[in-house]
Amino acid sequence: MILEVAILDIKQNQEQEFEKAFNRAQKIISSLNGYVSHQLQKCIEKKNRYILLVNWETLEDHTVGFRESKEYQEWRALLHHFYEPLPEVEHYQNVFNNPL
Amino acid sequence: MILEVAILDIKQNQEQEFEKAFNRAQKIISSLNGYVSHQLQKCIEKKNRYILLVNWETLEDHTVGFRESKEYQEWRALLHHFYEPLPEVEHYQNVFNNPL
Repeated sequence: MILEVAILDIKQNQEQEFEKAFNRAQKIISSLNGYVSHQLQKCIEKKNRYILLVNWETLEDHTVGFRESKEYQEWRALLHHFYEPLPEVEHYQNVFNNPL
Repeated sequence: MILEVAILDIKQNQEQEFEKAFNRAQKIISSLNGYVSHQLQKCIEKKNRYILLVNWETLEDHTVGFRESKEYQEWRALLHHFYEPLPEVEHYQNVFNNPL
């Protein structure tokens, strides 16, 4: 399993609109091949910062399956205009976890 | 519940030693008041990068309970010399997640 991590910095005072748009957008990823689970969490120290964590079965489920899909175009249209700057997305693999 | 997030950049070629030290250090946090769960994951795109995700019951369980404990001194001694730069630690609160 692969963890996608994106730190999302939202344009000033657009947090509420972003959360509404994300609530719609999350239905897009949840339906895709290889999608396992996701979380959107809001930063306590920086009020316009969020972290998006998505578990995918494989790296390619995200980088190919999702990013080359028509659903990705909808996702972008809903969300990308909130970001400043555009986020750098990284992928991680588990080393240790507890509980399993 | 609060999610502690730290992106950890490890000095070049010290990844294996860091993982060994983390394997010992994780027993320290797992025993503390307010600790819920943790994951250490390794970045695919940057080989010396990790992400540490720790769930705590409250913010203070981490920022006061842990950081002012004698256990934190052990944690620092085991891990901090691997970091370059010292990580910025942030805390997040859930907005959306799926599955619950």
